[in-house]
Amino acid sequence: MDYKKKLRLSAFARILTFSITLLFTALSFAQINRVEPPFWYAGMNLSSVQIMFYGKNIGQYEVAVSNNVVIENIKKTENPNYVFVTIDTKNIAPTELTFSFKSKNKVVFTKNYSIKARRENSKFRKSYDSSDMIYLIMSDRFANGNPNNDSSPETIEKVNRNLPGGRHGGDIEGIINHLDYIKKLGATAVWCTPLCEDNDPNYSYHTYGQSDVYKIDPRYGTNEDYLRLSQELHERGMKNIMDYVTNHWGSQHWMIKDLPTHDWINQFDVYTETSHKRTTVHDIHASNSDYKTCFDGWFVKTMPDLNQKNPLVLNYLIQNAIWWIEYANLDGFRVDTYNYADPNAIAKWTKSITDEYPYFNIVGEISMRDQAQLSYWQKDSKIGAIQSFNSYLPTVMDFILSDELLSIFNEEDKTWEKGMMKVYDNFANDFLYPNPNNILVFAENHDTNRFNEIYKNDFKKYQMAMTLLATVRGIPQLYYGSEIGMAGDRNKGGDPDIRRDFPGGWNEDSNNAFTKEGRTETQNQYFDFTSKLFTWRKTNDAVHFGKMKHFIPENNVYVYFRYTDDKSVMVIINNNSKSQTIKTNRFAESIQNYQTGNDILSGKTIDLKNDIVIEGKSVLVLELK
Amino acid sequence: MDYKKKLRLSAFARILTFSITLLFTALSFAQINRVEPPFWYAGMNLSSVQIMFYGKNIGQYEVAVSNNVVIENIKKTENPNYVFVTIDTKNIAPTELTFSFKSKNKVVFTKNYSIKARRENSKFRKSYDSSDMIYLIMSDRFANGNPNNDSSPETIEKVNRNLPGGRHGGDIEGIINHLDYIKKLGATAVWCTPLCEDNDPNYSYHTYGQSDVYKIDPRYGTNEDYLRLSQELHERGMKNIMDYVTNHWGSQHWMIKDLPTHDWINQFDVYTETSHKRTTVHDIHASNSDYKTCFDGWFVKTMPDLNQKNPLVLNYLIQNAIWWIEYANLDGFRVDTYNYADPNAIAKWTKSITDEYPYFNIVGEISMRDQAQLSYWQKDSKIGAIQSFNSYLPTVMDFILSDELLSIFNEEDKTWEKGMMKVYDNFANDFLYPNPNNILVFAENHDTNRFNEIYKNDFKKYQMAMTLLATVRGIPQLYYGSEIGMAGDRNKGGDPDIRRDFPGGWNEDSNNAFTKEGRTETQNQYFDFTSKLFTWRKTNDAVHFGKMKHFIPENNVYVYFRYTDDKSVMVIINNNSKSQTIKTNRFAESIQNYQTGNDILSGKTIDLKNDIVIEGKSVLVLELK
Repeated sequence: MDYKKKLRLSAFARILTFSITLLFTALSFAQINRVEPPFWYAGMNLSSVQIMFYGKNIGQYEVAVSNNVVIENIKKTENPNYVFVTIDTKNIAPTELTFSFKSKNKVVFTKNYSIKARRENSKFRKSYDSSDMIYLIMSDRFANGNPNNDSSPETIEKVNRNLPGGRHGGDIEGIINHLDYIKKLGATAVWCTPLCEDNDPNYSYHTYGQSDVYKIDPRYGTNEDYLRLSQELHERGMKNIMDYVTNHWGSQHWMIKDLPTHDWINQFDVYTETSHKRTTVHDIHASNSDYKTCFDGWFVKTMPDLNQKNPLVLNYLIQNAIWWIEYANLDGFRVDTYNYADPNAIAKWTKSITDEYPYFNIVGEISMRDQAQLSYWQKDSKIGAIQSFNSYLPTVMDFILSDELLSIFNEEDKTWEKGMMKVYDNFANDFLYPNPNNILVFAENHDTNRFNEIYKNDFKKYQMAMTLLATVRGIPQLYYGSEIGMAGDRNKGGDPDIRRDFPGGWNEDSNNAFTKEGRTETQNQYFDFTSKLFTWRKTNDAVHFGKMKHFIPENNVYVYFRYTDDKSVMVIINNNSKSQTIKTNRFAESIQNYQTGNDILSGKTIDLKNDIVIEGKSVLVLELK
Repeated sequence: MDYKKKLRLSAFARILTFSITLLFTALSFAQINRVEPPFWYAGMNLSSVQIMFYGKNIGQYEVAVSNNVVIENIKKTENPNYVFVTIDTKNIAPTELTFSFKSKNKVVFTKNYSIKARRENSKFRKSYDSSDMIYLIMSDRFANGNPNNDSSPETIEKVNRNLPGGRHGGDIEGIINHLDYIKKLGATAVWCTPLCEDNDPNYSYHTYGQSDVYKIDPRYGTNEDYLRLSQELHERGMKNIMDYVTNHWGSQHWMIKDLPTHDWINQFDVYTETSHKRTTVHDIHASNSDYKTCFDGWFVKTMPDLNQKNPLVLNYLIQNAIWWIEYANLDGFRVDTYNYADPNAIAKWTKSITDEYPYFNIVGEISMRDQAQLSYWQKDSKIGAIQSFNSYLPTVMDFILSDELLSIFNEEDKTWEKGMMKVYDNFANDFLYPNPNNILVFAENHDTNRFNEIYKNDFKKYQMAMTLLATVRGIPQLYYGSEIGMAGDRNKGGDPDIRRDFPGGWNEDSNNAFTKEGRTETQNQYFDFTSKLFTWRKTNDAVHFGKMKHFIPENNVYVYFRYTDDKSVMVIINNNSKSQTIKTNRFAESIQNYQTGNDILSGKTIDLKNDIVIEGKSVLVLELK
């Protein structure tokens, strides 16, 4: 459809909807401003849905529901503007219910409520795993597909592309427009930083301080646009991973301004920030006060810390998450500041979601630098089990590897502990994880330094890092822009500098890195390599789910194999600046009867009976034959 | 007894014994050069004792034994000079057995073998634990109590005190002579580096390359002297911890020169050193070759690596260890290079010993720098259990803490990760250990840099480190000489420089640090502090077995409590160079109803209702009242 026509139609539809809503509101919803979840689905595992009605003094009414539906519980709080009504939807077919709000046995107003039909096989939806490659997008900074929604009358902060920490206009339309680019890169999944409304007056571009978690920020698009993103991804065989925030909301969240209960958020006499000492969760010597400060303290002043220990809050977050999966047909979650939330409550949240969707993958941001501590947070961890704790979180993030990748390529092998040895040492602790394949592996994300900045765009170092990510155990994740050599200095420019606009995402950009023609020679060098590597990765299941065998690095050269019964990939990463000769007989137990290795990058064939000479700071990825 | 008279008598006794032995040998043991164990005990759990007879072509004889004792097994090897005879001693009272060696049914020679009576309650002997403080002595470098045994005709290397890596003459007599000094320091146990014969021509002073593991090196004394060391310790309420080496022997070991079996030691086509990558034990990706190199590779060329996978070897080591416990009335072991031996075999070794002596403590040298990896090696570890591994090793060494103590006191609190925070972070992982009390805590040992060298004899830093060791969980260990400020630079002078002679241990020393009068003012400052601290430690069981509660360090100040139901000790370590004010209300949950704290170091009483001001780089150890 012609874009302008679409816009006009969309504007008409919105006016129509608005008019109808206005009329409807005037008639029967005089007292109701919000209903959440706005609708629910028939046939859910979570069949007891707790519907929150919000409106001036709504708590003074009695509540009833149509269709003989059972009301399991009506919960009123100290704030008369809320009522939480739990109904049993177990045996309800898709239908429209009507809630009646009565006073002195007379219906004062009613509210219709939809129980919708689920998509086929929704419960057993597949999710992302180690056969995927995830492309992480800073949503405001990738591409401005719809310049008309850069600012919105509903939200405070207006577009200002000249302000590094301002809103730049990136949106869902922009992401959809470049899915073919992302696919060409070899990515199979997209993780966009949060898209729900964040009405903070400043720095709302990062969108981790949300003001309405049932609504896409109008500057990114609409809920329907977000659903369309899933559809466009699925048409390409790709996956949509939502960035979910369980720990906090923004201070502009409408409920924060009129709290249902005082303890909806963690309250302190004086403002108390988290200590960040998440080790208090398992520390047998930890003081109660340190524990409380860590998990109840706020991340920053503008992000009220949600009290997930309050069952109303927890339930709200569970239902919200499930609602998004069902509504937007999601393929997975990434959960922000996962282990800053109350540990037991967040575990319940996670269990509820995976009870609803048994194959749904969730990766939590567990930024711990110790494998046992990381493992503690993975589902069915034997480390967690020491303290009878199970997070139910399927996937954790390998921040240890990330730290290493952001430093080792500048390290020569002068000491036993440096360079590739660090990477080897990291994987040597994989026995601690219940599922090493479910570990997100990445060099960088929107909170770390930029790889290409640290290494001053040394392409060889980029090749080594990406090769490692593409071939080790786990789920590789690439941060947008790195694939065209994007840099940015967090130490100088702060967070905005590692979240620069992707060149070509804005009509006015002179450099369009989305197309071969638009890219500079250097950008094409980065892109072509990345695309070749990750496109190949899609084809070889040995690097998806195969076993790994690695050898103690010598002279800063790391050699490992990924293999199945009938496939084997030999990876050689020479982080030494000098050329090295690899004696293949050391690897006899892995080479077995294979004769040659085809380097998937150069296309050359290497005879495994001879020594292999590998240039300084380079890689070989050999499919063994 | 007058010392010279004692020496003369001893010399006479030795000549007499030698003459009798010569006669005896000539008569009936013509073919037997060695019997090991040289005797055994009645009523042992290990009642099936495998006696090794060694002599020219002894394997050609048939073997029988007197007293109707059952021979369970006769094992001959490819080397005809050995025979291993397993007898069942289960129902034997203390007695003398006679082994007959026959040829064509005629007894050619016989050998008497003693089954001795055990000491009362030997099985249930107590051992060391976290109520103890262990004093580690470099045996050749502490005190020369008997100048007549500095060299011996039986051993190659002669005394040369001018050679840093030579033998200096320290001996058991010297240790016994200064047990009162050690006791005054607050130590309750002594760990001497190995004392069995090491006949290496060079560097035998460290004695980790033993040439006869049933015999004390004549330059240290006799087996009887070693037994006397135990007796002298026990009379003072102190404990004797033997340094046992399971991983290797010296190349001069008599059996190495005439191997019972080719695989008695780990053999390679070309000399192969251990890779030191002990993580291969649990690394699910480790290559077989790396695993083998780690555990079968040799520590150094002069120390043949024992193959504990060979049951004969393992049994030999088990019996030897038990023999020493029983013979020398030991209170515990420290085991060298514990996790360089075959993991399953060393676990069997350890289990056999603790099956024999259920309360016997053994601390293994597990020099890993990761708590999960350390925990893997502690008895009943949940980490080890991930791979169905149980080392049965009661105690591990906290090398992580040692590394920290050797660096943090030079670190100001400029970053979140430095200074006291490192120590806090270490203890935050204690949940990984099945028994955090059974962790050896130390700043330094004979393989690390010297604390007082690193910190240039900054007494305040010494006070902080020792206070920490005296009050945290675990078993504190002090390295000889530090208590008088001894230094030594490993980076310049190598190992010998961190193993300097204790001043006053030799008659010719001008500085005698064993006495108050002999010590310099600085030495007395160190000694008096150390003695006061560790002598107090003996009196307070809250720091032995009490719980620990610690608080996240702020401004490089670490505050923690050790407490029982009725006692509490509050420790404040200010590693900030500036004076700090501690707001006591932060610690309300631990201070509870206590009103005052008596500083065991200054004797001052502190009111807990007020803020506490603590000087820069200083400590407070408050007994709460």
